Amino acid sequence: MTKGASDLDRGIKEFYQEAEERHLAPLWPVTAQLLPPEPKTKVKPFLWHWSDLRRMAYRAGELVPIERGGERRVLALVNPGLGGKLAATHTLWGAVQIVMPGEIAPCHRHTASAIRFIIEGDRSYTTINGDKCMMSRGDLILTPNWTWHDHGCESDKPIIWMDGLDLPLVGDLDAVFFEFPPEFRQPPTTINASETKFSGPQLKPTWGESESSAPALLNYKWEPTYKALKKIGDGAASPYDDVCFEYTNPNTGGPVLPTMGCYIQLIRSGVHTQAHRQVNSAVYHVFEGKGYSVINGKRFDWEKGDFFVVPPWAWHEHANESQEEAALFSVQDTPVMRALGLYREEAYRENQGYQKVAGKFDS
Amino acid sequence: MTKGASDLDRGIKEFYQEAEERHLAPLWPVTAQLLPPEPKTKVKPFLWHWSDLRRMAYRAGELVPIERGGERRVLALVNPGLGGKLAATHTLWGAVQIVMPGEIAPCHRHTASAIRFIIEGDRSYTTINGDKCMMSRGDLILTPNWTWHDHGCESDKPIIWMDGLDLPLVGDLDAVFFEFPPEFRQPPTTINASETKFSGPQLKPTWGESESSAPALLNYKWEPTYKALKKIGDGAASPYDDVCFEYTNPNTGGPVLPTMGCYIQLIRSGVHTQAHRQVNSAVYHVFEGKGYSVINGKRFDWEKGDFFVVPPWAWHEHANESQEEAALFSVQDTPVMRALGLYREEAYRENQGYQKVAGKFDS
Amino acid sequence: MTKGASDLDRGIKEFYQEAEERHLAPLWPVTAQLLPPEPKTKVKPFLWHWSDLRRMAYRAGELVPIERGGERRVLALVNPGLGGKLAATHTLWGAVQIVMPGEIAPCHRHTASAIRFIIEGDRSYTTINGDKCMMSRGDLILTPNWTWHDHGCESDKPIIWMDGLDLPLVGDLDAVFFEFPPEFRQPPTTINASETKFSGPQLKPTWGESESSAPALLNYKWEPTYKALKKIGDGAASPYDDVCFEYTNPNTGGPVLPTMGCYIQLIRSGVHTQAHRQVNSAVYHVFEGKGYSVINGKRFDWEKGDFFVVPPWAWHEHANESQEEAALFSVQDTPVMRALGLYREEAYRENQGYQKVAGKFDS
Amino acid sequence: MTKGASDLDRGIKEFYQEAEERHLAPLWPVTAQLLPPEPKTKVKPFLWHWSDLRRMAYRAGELVPIERGGERRVLALVNPGLGGKLAATHTLWGAVQIVMPGEIAPCHRHTASAIRFIIEGDRSYTTINGDKCMMSRGDLILTPNWTWHDHGCESDKPIIWMDGLDLPLVGDLDAVFFEFPPEFRQPPTTINASETKFSGPQLKPTWGESESSAPALLNYKWEPTYKALKKIGDGAASPYDDVCFEYTNPNTGGPVLPTMGCYIQLIRSGVHTQAHRQVNSAVYHVFEGKGYSVINGKRFDWEKGDFFVVPPWAWHEHANESQEEAALFSVQDTPVMRALGLYREEAYRENQGYQKVAGKFDS
Repeated sequence: MTKGASDLDRGIKEFYQEAEERHLAPLWPVTAQLLPPEPKTKVKPFLWHWSDLRRMAYRAGELVPIERGGERRVLALVNPGLGGKLAATHTLWGAVQIVMPGEIAPCHRHTASAIRFIIEGDRSYTTINGDKCMMSRGDLILTPNWTWHDHGCESDKPIIWMDGLDLPLVGDLDAVFFEFPPEFRQPPTTINASETKFSGPQLKPTWGESESSAPALLNYKWEPTYKALKKIGDGAASPYDDVCFEYTNPNTGGPVLPTMGCYIQLIRSGVHTQAHRQVNSAVYHVFEGKGYSVINGKRFDWEKGDFFVVPPWAWHEHANESQEEAALFSVQDTPVMRALGLYREEAYRENQGYQKVAGKFDS
Repeated sequence: MTKGASDLDRGIKEFYQEAEERHLAPLWPVTAQLLPPEPKTKVKPFLWHWSDLRRMAYRAGELVPIERGGERRVLALVNPGLGGKLAATHTLWGAVQIVMPGEIAPCHRHTASAIRFIIEGDRSYTTINGDKCMMSRGDLILTPNWTWHDHGCESDKPIIWMDGLDLPLVGDLDAVFFEFPPEFRQPPTTINASETKFSGPQLKPTWGESESSAPALLNYKWEPTYKALKKIGDGAASPYDDVCFEYTNPNTGGPVLPTMGCYIQLIRSGVHTQAHRQVNSAVYHVFEGKGYSVINGKRFDWEKGDFFVVPPWAWHEHANESQEEAALFSVQDTPVMRALGLYREEAYRENQGYQKVAGKFDS
Repeated sequence: MTKGASDLDRGIKEFYQEAEERHLAPLWPVTAQLLPPEPKTKVKPFLWHWSDLRRMAYRAGELVPIERGGERRVLALVNPGLGGKLAATHTLWGAVQIVMPGEIAPCHRHTASAIRFIIEGDRSYTTINGDKCMMSRGDLILTPNWTWHDHGCESDKPIIWMDGLDLPLVGDLDAVFFEFPPEFRQPPTTINASETKFSGPQLKPTWGESESSAPALLNYKWEPTYKALKKIGDGAASPYDDVCFEYTNPNTGGPVLPTMGCYIQLIRSGVHTQAHRQVNSAVYHVFEGKGYSVINGKRFDWEKGDFFVVPPWAWHEHANESQEEAALFSVQDTPVMRALGLYREEAYRENQGYQKVAGKFDS
Repeated sequence: MTKGASDLDRGIKEFYQEAEERHLAPLWPVTAQLLPPEPKTKVKPFLWHWSDLRRMAYRAGELVPIERGGERRVLALVNPGLGGKLAATHTLWGAVQIVMPGEIAPCHRHTASAIRFIIEGDRSYTTINGDKCMMSRGDLILTPNWTWHDHGCESDKPIIWMDGLDLPLVGDLDAVFFEFPPEFRQPPTTINASETKFSGPQLKPTWGESESSAPALLNYKWEPTYKALKKIGDGAASPYDDVCFEYTNPNTGGPVLPTMGCYIQLIRSGVHTQAHRQVNSAVYHVFEGKGYSVINGKRFDWEKGDFFVVPPWAWHEHANESQEEAALFSVQDTPVMRALGLYREEAYRENQGYQKVAGKFDS
């Protein structure tokens, strides 16, 4: 090594050291790491078995009361790639929640938004800003950002549902606010009011409007949802997701919440979808049937009740080789990606390479 | 009169005369006429009886073929206040159309948008840009601006429907374009495709999207519409319109078309609504039942099949004194008023004077 | 003629007669008239000479006072094709207004929106909802829907401006409301406040926001406008309009008003633009220079101060054969056409036929 | 301890252990941590001195070449609270970049968006998708998501600017894509084209439109910006930020980028603003003058060239006790918070407690 090179090395070393002391960092040594050609995610594809989830939920029901402070009896999916972060994906919280007969999960509100998808049980409710929304299997219930909500089980059997929240994202954004009301439980002022008003397909009531873009419908019932899925019959559907509907905010036609989209899909018997990848992440719940998904080349067999995660920009395809239809519910962070101009999607075509589907691939 | 005044008069007279010659007009003599405190409309409230409309439609079916050129067997409602203008209100066309068994009304397209509300018959269709939409009583069918459409009756009985168009407005705006295709009839590429895809309440398919704000649903079926109306039961509803829903564009949550909103409402037995007035106009069709509306102080008794018009800024209230529910369908130019910042609404409160409901009453 | 045909004729004749009696009209005999291939407008291209307009305006200043009731000393352009309707085009009012030294045109408000483009004079003002906007040659002033406004001349010379209003449209829509305040003149609460806050290019103040989409800037000054036009130099510009800018609402980036767009354009020396036609209509004022426009094949020579009208769907091109630049200001009803989904534009290409530029030509 | 309690404890212990093994986590022990009453951020208020930054930048210019791979000679601000994460705040990258005379920073593109604010130098450029944008002190240059960009210095003195990127956020969202072009440098197709077209206040060109909501203006020049700031004079301004403008996207009137808003503000001599706090974070650069900010009770004195950070939901106020005006430029993640429905702002009122300014404090 020449003296010049040696001086330079020493100069750079000193420079790096001073930079660190002054809370500065040079970009050039880490450019490739910070700006990879494609997203490098720590989120791992993973599957949780319903047999475990259900058993653990019931066990929690025996062991732990629901109390002010703990607030909720929730078992959260912990993605094994995220180093202990309590999150199913980097942005999404996925969990199983159980409320035992007669219990009430106390009223509170927070800036994280939540969706609930009911897995088991009925004669239970979530009261949201005074509207008592009765819940049974297959229903989707929203508790938008900063709405008061408490849950209760009026049945003689527990109720179990999937929780989906944007909490990891809202937490990372340092935007979590939380509040208790004076009372433990909200007195309902209406029962199923939003559902009753918005039960029609593409119809909206002309009375009682409030903020025009706020989520006006809080309870999407299973029966009409399933009927709509079945109406497609053996007709054309999505090559990537088969018969897949997005739940919409009736006031906008857009996603149910600004941070999360919810989807329900049938994988019909014999269907094996094409692979695609999207910049968003997803938490899936197997509502009915069995099948498998191939995620970044690895097969995940799933059956009724299971949960699994598709990481961002991971190739994924779904297959149903059984005689029965399968139904998947999912919550996805797609609206975040779209709102921030970051959405991309790419389809896989064998022998033809990839094909861009959506997003700014070329300017 | 002094000489000065006389000179002035002469000067003004000469001035007015020269202005006219030069295609100019002074505003000051006509300010009050051009800028009245409230809208002065020529549109008159009026009611057409179904017995006449139906009889005349059938008679037209006997007398007149449907041919290229004439295009459609349509009887238009002519508002008696508009001096012979072929229009139900200043902006809206309302009409009854009949297609006899086996007939086809030939394919064309125009920039005026249309809605159809089916009054009588079934096994008939409108094909819209290749999607054959089957129609029966109570269905609402859209043919948006510049979509190809032809109609046919495959039943052994005629089909009769209400037409609603924005033609008077689009005509006044000098924006009517019209085109024939080479063929008389479109070959359908799909059957009920839009209806099948959007049959769910607040669900949208994730495949086959096109322009995001274009009307994606073309056929709103009666059965789920009625079910949604009935679901309200004896619950709270609009003080002015009782149980009244607006049909929505599933992609936007807004009106079905940029120029026309469609509404379906139940006037429940025993209900007498509060009066209000709106800057928009409306054409009503009595789909079921009987009752009356008071429009600017005059009572109009209506029964099944009748049509009536509510002019802009006319006080109106609806009453149903029968034992059966009544159902009204209407098409209104509300979206135009909203898009142009002109919408206003005012409620009537006895002993309390008027109360502003919406719109820019105060800046 | 056979007896059958004769019976049929008689039947049809009776049918037509009964239809008329019952306020109904058959469509088939008038389809071609109501639905022409392209818009048939009564609006005629026309040019008003400044020498006449200015002389008549001054003469009006001598003959007629400004009083409550008459409200304004305005000479309206009357399109010779519209059968006496007081309108420059079917939707737009164009006029010249003069206020003499010391005069005040009293405060009022109406739902018709107005723009003013100052032709001659200074030290005059329009006070709009309390903001006194000082005006001089070349300034564009808005009085949006339902804003209080009065005008005054504090100079020792008269002020003359162009008025542009959507009054013909708002009148046709039966949506004109008008109100007097108790006082003759508003006491100003601010002077040039909107102009001061929005003087920067693509900058908005972070304080004092109100309704986000309402017009926040009320006075667009000439000096920076002209500077922006000149900055283009001999660079690329519009093939149809040369260096043409649209004034924008800083809160939306869209047109200044929901019903009217305002444009300022330089026709540079030696430029002869390509012809195009648009579904909207326009009222032009020649702010500087001289040249001519060819409208539907007829040449209209214009010079400083003149006004002319381009009807809907009329081919038009502009030429400047002088050594000096020419500047045209115009008000157009384009936002109405866009909001209602009716906008179309077509370019003329010699030897190549027409080429669609924008709008729904094919579905 | 009773046997029962002991059994319960053991059961819970076993439960927690099994949960961990199965990649599940109970919520109840960590509810208060995950859902605090107000945001708990690790971002610390911090100030970097220009004397250090400038010296280090020049030193880097001597030590390190700009090469493909390293790409840029950038010194990033490292917030001392973020555990080594290369970020100024949790969502924002702030840095100083230097390009030496004759150097070129090679062309690339990425999904992270960037803004540059020029501190020192001129006769330099950023070429963005072919438009060579010339830069000098005080200019703001955008390189939106996925636009090609390279930088060069054609002066005989270095150019130094502030970089602001959404990279920490886009990285956390797993949405970073990056691409090299074949060539090292883009051949410019235009020079200052976007600036030339959008130089007018509230004017947009009618030609050359592309995607309507995309950032159309890429270079906001200092001179008209400063002129607009000064025009406010001693007039009313923001109680929290004095004379503060947001740079806007001329096509939307909204923030310059979907993920970052840019602001320029004068703190006039003698002004001490009111404290407020906002859910967003900010990176400030002191463009001119000196003063101090009190952030969560701690005073940070700043002078020309310094950088400082305001964390989310931190009380902050600015003061200028000098005889000269001070000017602050800042980049903030406000658009993210607004797009996701998370924006909140609160004002501090001495002796009156806090006052909500904006956001969903009450439903």
